[in-house]
Amino acid sequence: MTNRPYADLFSHLRKKRPLVHHITNYVTVNDCANITLCAGGAPVMADAPEEVEEMAAVAGALVLNIGTLNRAQIDSMLLAGRMANERKIPVVLDPVGAGATRLRTESAKRLLDELQISILKGNAGEIGVLAGAKGKVRGVDSHGLEGDPIGIARDFAKTAGITVVVSGATDIVTDGNRVLLVENGDPMMGSISGTGCMAASVTGAFAAVSDDPVEASVAAMAAFGIAGERAASGAHGPYSFKTGLFDQLATLGPENLMNCARIKKA
Amino acid sequence: MTNRPYADLFSHLRKKRPLVHHITNYVTVNDCANITLCAGGAPVMADAPEEVEEMAAVAGALVLNIGTLNRAQIDSMLLAGRMANERKIPVVLDPVGAGATRLRTESAKRLLDELQISILKGNAGEIGVLAGAKGKVRGVDSHGLEGDPIGIARDFAKTAGITVVVSGATDIVTDGNRVLLVENGDPMMGSISGTGCMAASVTGAFAAVSDDPVEASVAAMAAFGIAGERAASGAHGPYSFKTGLFDQLATLGPENLMNCARIKKA
Amino acid sequence: MTNRPYADLFSHLRKKRPLVHHITNYVTVNDCANITLCAGGAPVMADAPEEVEEMAAVAGALVLNIGTLNRAQIDSMLLAGRMANERKIPVVLDPVGAGATRLRTESAKRLLDELQISILKGNAGEIGVLAGAKGKVRGVDSHGLEGDPIGIARDFAKTAGITVVVSGATDIVTDGNRVLLVENGDPMMGSISGTGCMAASVTGAFAAVSDDPVEASVAAMAAFGIAGERAASGAHGPYSFKTGLFDQLATLGPENLMNCARIKKA
Repeated sequence: MTNRPYADLFSHLRKKRPLVHHITNYVTVNDCANITLCAGGAPVMADAPEEVEEMAAVAGALVLNIGTLNRAQIDSMLLAGRMANERKIPVVLDPVGAGATRLRTESAKRLLDELQISILKGNAGEIGVLAGAKGKVRGVDSHGLEGDPIGIARDFAKTAGITVVVSGATDIVTDGNRVLLVENGDPMMGSISGTGCMAASVTGAFAAVSDDPVEASVAAMAAFGIAGERAASGAHGPYSFKTGLFDQLATLGPENLMNCARIKKA
Repeated sequence: MTNRPYADLFSHLRKKRPLVHHITNYVTVNDCANITLCAGGAPVMADAPEEVEEMAAVAGALVLNIGTLNRAQIDSMLLAGRMANERKIPVVLDPVGAGATRLRTESAKRLLDELQISILKGNAGEIGVLAGAKGKVRGVDSHGLEGDPIGIARDFAKTAGITVVVSGATDIVTDGNRVLLVENGDPMMGSISGTGCMAASVTGAFAAVSDDPVEASVAAMAAFGIAGERAASGAHGPYSFKTGLFDQLATLGPENLMNCARIKKA
Repeated sequence: MTNRPYADLFSHLRKKRPLVHHITNYVTVNDCANITLCAGGAPVMADAPEEVEEMAAVAGALVLNIGTLNRAQIDSMLLAGRMANERKIPVVLDPVGAGATRLRTESAKRLLDELQISILKGNAGEIGVLAGAKGKVRGVDSHGLEGDPIGIARDFAKTAGITVVVSGATDIVTDGNRVLLVENGDPMMGSISGTGCMAASVTGAFAAVSDDPVEASVAAMAAFGIAGERAASGAHGPYSFKTGLFDQLATLGPENLMNCARIKKA
């Protein structure tokens, strides 16, 4: 496999600088804004029901993240999501903590039901719960799922008509037909809060400039993972790692994605 | 021109450590708190309608930032703003994203109408929109305005009876009579989320210890810009730049503002 | 005194990785999540009334922080707190800004009245206000209290049936009988926003794995303080200090707590 298409997409993202509209949690929102900038997008965070449709209508992608969900936010997500669907703007959903509480599980399912989600990105536990495969989630952490993650993700993607990204040591990306594995990343990515959320934001930035959600997701996970590998080598602990993660993604070039992405078919 | 008055104001700020009450967005709020500390102020963030008047009443300045606006927050801004007006406490308004959605444009106008704003600080697009000069705003980014920014800012300041600060490569500060330009800063300030918000916080800290909003704004933009220049020289990317921006502002002394501020009359 | 029990508790925390449920402010929430991870816990932030009971029920500790309080959040705190009480899950309360506004003072008192708080951690001003000892609070900063802090904390702890932690250059920890002083820390901890909030999160993590709230609080304040000392020695300013604070706590081992904690009886 050649990494050329991913590198080209990265070039395109950096040139186009798409607006990435987020409705997201208040824990990692600053990290999501900054990582979107580092990837090459222009982040905007807006969640008031009075303005989300207007903002989504001019965005390149919409990222929905349920990390600190409340009822009002679900309504805003539905309003923004319907507008994005109408305008064929890709919607990325990060079902943070689905499986940990009924509110999160039911809300994630409702968003999947009522909106055309383009890319669903979660950890193994969250995806397992939503796919009906007994995922285990404690707080916002995955404690795995029962069965074969690749098969579960592929079947769920096919049934739901979406692209599914299962983040982990090896990321799984599938639309039900194609299944690609991304092996970039570093264990230190688990030492800070928010890498999952950031991965969704980077995915949104790539999705904004691509017609192929699988390609966009693979490019995003590889670019983010390479930045993580590079940041880990210079880190003295979690926060200097975090600093490096932003620095490395911002200074990463398409040629680095070309040379360092470790992508294979399942 | 001598920079002496700005350096003296900076000394005064560091000695007095004024309370700077913020009603602000949840994206960059932590950065606003920390940059206020670095400048020499004591930040407090409080937005519940039950407490904003009490908090504003004892503050040295009130900073209103509409970056993640909602209806309840507007009411709190009006309550706090009226109390600040009554007590002659300066109010700084950062109309983040005015022009991007009706909610933001109308809310910024309403705050300008119903409160006596001391300093309005925005990017060229936001100020253009509020001044009726066809500013272009996408998300929270300025895409410029039609016409001469200095003339537009000066006329708007005169008509509205406020001090206007247009942030950019060269910052414009005007009260309708005086027009001052601040040339400090670095392009890396655009590589992270929140420098605009932080500039408003620093302006609030300086305004809290000054009777002259033009002088306070100029000193703030120069000090923040010098910190940006110094941070850029040691940065490996956006987040190490961000780290340096806080470190440099905190360690900047009045003598550095005296020697390094690049301020001129328009 | 030997530091062995604190070191052993730290080992236990690292092994058990307890879930620490936070209902907290939006200013320092990211720092609270990351410092919990660095200490050895698994943070989760959730404040919707629909899910807080479910989340609290499976947590190892519940941290309530009123830094950006609003009415809806108080209700969620009461719901989560009652569930935690029922399940014997320790509840840590950080009464940020109590004394600065009536809303904060009254809400902190209400939480102390209606819930069984295990550990109340505040600065001298906040504790003074809640203990009825004329604490002085401006914004979220302590301006001291009238009288003898140790005696006031001890009497308040005894009357209220809680453990009281007064953070400061020397931290006071008391349950009304035992009074312990922790002398670790560095003045740079006051140069950034959120160290008080972070101390409460670290305390929550230790409390989750201990039956003795005094021991948990002492271990937490010592570990956090040692991390602060180490971070200060490599810092160029507040934000590089902050980076170091996380890095140092994450890489701190039980043996460091054993050797470097400066704990004594009052």
